[in-house]
Amino acid sequence: FNIVVLPGDGVGPEVALAAQRVLTSIGDIYGHRFEFAEHLIGGAAIDATGEALPEETKAACLASDAVLLGAVGGPKWDGGKVRPEQGLLAIRKAMGLYANLRPLQVSPVLAHRSPLKKEIVEGVDLIVFRELTSGVYFGERTRTETQASDLCVYTVEEIERVARAAFQAAGQRRGKVTSVDKANVMETSRLWREVVTRIHAEEYPQITLEHALVDSMAMHLIRKPRDYDVILTENMFGDILSDEISVLGGSIGLLPSASLGADGPGLFEPIHGSAPDIAGRDLANPVGMVLSAAMMLRHSFELEDEADSIEAAVAAVLASGAVTADLGGALGTVAATRAIVDAIR
Amino acid sequence: FNIVVLPGDGVGPEVALAAQRVLTSIGDIYGHRFEFAEHLIGGAAIDATGEALPEETKAACLASDAVLLGAVGGPKWDGGKVRPEQGLLAIRKAMGLYANLRPLQVSPVLAHRSPLKKEIVEGVDLIVFRELTSGVYFGERTRTETQASDLCVYTVEEIERVARAAFQAAGQRRGKVTSVDKANVMETSRLWREVVTRIHAEEYPQITLEHALVDSMAMHLIRKPRDYDVILTENMFGDILSDEISVLGGSIGLLPSASLGADGPGLFEPIHGSAPDIAGRDLANPVGMVLSAAMMLRHSFELEDEADSIEAAVAAVLASGAVTADLGGALGTVAATRAIVDAIR
Ligand SMILES: CC(C)[C@H](C(=O)O)[C@@H](O)C(=O)O
Ligand SMILES: CC(C)[C@H](C(=O)O)[C@@H](O)C(=O)O
Repeated sequence: FNIVVLPGDGVGPEVALAAQRVLTSIGDIYGHRFEFAEHLIGGAAIDATGEALPEETKAACLASDAVLLGAVGGPKWDGGKVRPEQGLLAIRKAMGLYANLRPLQVSPVLAHRSPLKKEIVEGVDLIVFRELTSGVYFGERTRTETQASDLCVYTVEEIERVARAAFQAAGQRRGKVTSVDKANVMETSRLWREVVTRIHAEEYPQITLEHALVDSMAMHLIRKPRDYDVILTENMFGDILSDEISVLGGSIGLLPSASLGADGPGLFEPIHGSAPDIAGRDLANPVGMVLSAAMMLRHSFELEDEADSIEAAVAAVLASGAVTADLGGALGTVAATRAIVDAIR
Repeated sequence: FNIVVLPGDGVGPEVALAAQRVLTSIGDIYGHRFEFAEHLIGGAAIDATGEALPEETKAACLASDAVLLGAVGGPKWDGGKVRPEQGLLAIRKAMGLYANLRPLQVSPVLAHRSPLKKEIVEGVDLIVFRELTSGVYFGERTRTETQASDLCVYTVEEIERVARAAFQAAGQRRGKVTSVDKANVMETSRLWREVVTRIHAEEYPQITLEHALVDSMAMHLIRKPRDYDVILTENMFGDILSDEISVLGGSIGLLPSASLGADGPGLFEPIHGSAPDIAGRDLANPVGMVLSAAMMLRHSFELEDEADSIEAAVAAVLASGAVTADLGGALGTVAATRAIVDAIR
């Protein structure tokens, strides 16, 4: 398996290394060969080449079996002509990664670290399907002396394909999709609601579908997070809501994501950002990145057992209290990774 | 004082009546005459006239000293050609209400009802300044067979005026403004950040200013809500974030808002919506609407003592446990209002 690794900025390189260690040990045990090729993206790429996504990186990703990404961005590149985030947005677009999957399970051993009451977060098990290649992220922008604008566009086809992905996932889970929009204000949201409603009726009538407004959803996700199974939403709302719920499990450092397209390689990255304040200090939690690697095994390589093995190891390590500082533990990134590798063995 | 009352839909009429009762009793005690004139808006206006904001309502609001609004919307008008929410957006625009103030104080007696841990929400005291007359709410929309679009526009002037309002408020509070945007993606956000930074440097250097991205803010507001004093943001982000934090205090039914323009009358409405499921059943919490009336006394009429008196009465009633069902109490809207009136006396 040819895996492109994009370490990126801040803590990105540290957690990317953790994922490679874990995958190598999985390869040893199960007899797979994972080849890793590192390439530049984000601020690191800007420093080296002037571009946030060099052609060479893009070509390598498109030719790979899967891409692991650490994190991009940092204050160092603020106000520059090219921003690190452009690299991330460009690679999502170039690889056609329209469905961003953000699962959230609240571990019973960590529920007490949540800012929410234990009885509210215990048992939460949901997944956000965020549309990732359209909306206001990719619309035309203008800027004059006196004003600026951003355009949010959605096509029927863009909504259909991510909706199908969400309904399919719901069929293998608890059978419920909550579609989130702002249909009382936005035209793209009204189209979103119509298309999701039609795809549901025509193709997935056995799934339960409900619609929610983004503002009231921001509220319900805190009051009753257990009510949700699959949450389907557009790019910007998905960004905000998935970050909001990332605190439910006690640390954003725990959470993985998978970005998938129609076919071709997927991209796997932790939810957390580049965290420049703790970068290079062996403080980052490797779990979000390691669980992203498990999602890669499952979604890109169909290696179910291997993915299960990583997830079980992570759960065991978390239960044992061998955790990083964000979870109140004393382990560094390297030691926490070693604990996961040991648990796999 | 000539006050236009727009009861609107759902529980709107019930809570609007509660506010009038409380104001009448304040008038009796302090020797003011509040004249109330009811007009149609939202679904009620659509049913009666076909329009969500009849000309006659608009004219009455513009000629008034202040406007009290209950709530608009409901499933009854879903899919209709005219939507109730258009009335709300139109009156905000017509009155030039560019600054929407949403204060949040977590009452110590109700902190235990929050979905968040007591030690996280206790002592929260913040106010959101949401820009209310621009952004994606008022940009051009398009729709074809195959796609839809929404345009988000901000002018320098629109950002300046709401930023000034937020900095001024911070000067009378703890002196800190957190400006929220998505400057790593949106052009309007980059303009927002530049303008806010400049107004701060030129006019309010004594205030502490920090910038936050909307996604990480959605997270921080749950992890450390006590860190915030004044939160300044654009229309859509303000809608989402203020609803998110509305759960911190135990019930959205408690929260007031004030919408102010350069001069002319302000509009005062609770944060909660029309809640069609409990409408007409004497179940709505009147507190959000009553505290909105107190904000009216303070901001539009400069009746500080009178506003204080309402707020003290509400606090006393909440502390006494004389509360509505959303707070676990047994009182109806009418009885809860009577308890507030009695406490004022
Ligand atoms: C870095 C930023 C552009 C990005 C986004 O908003 O998509 C990030 O917040 C994310 O959610 O992956
Ligand atoms: C009803 C709706 C259009 C409105 C808004 O989004 O502004 C409401 O959610 C609010 O926050 O006042």
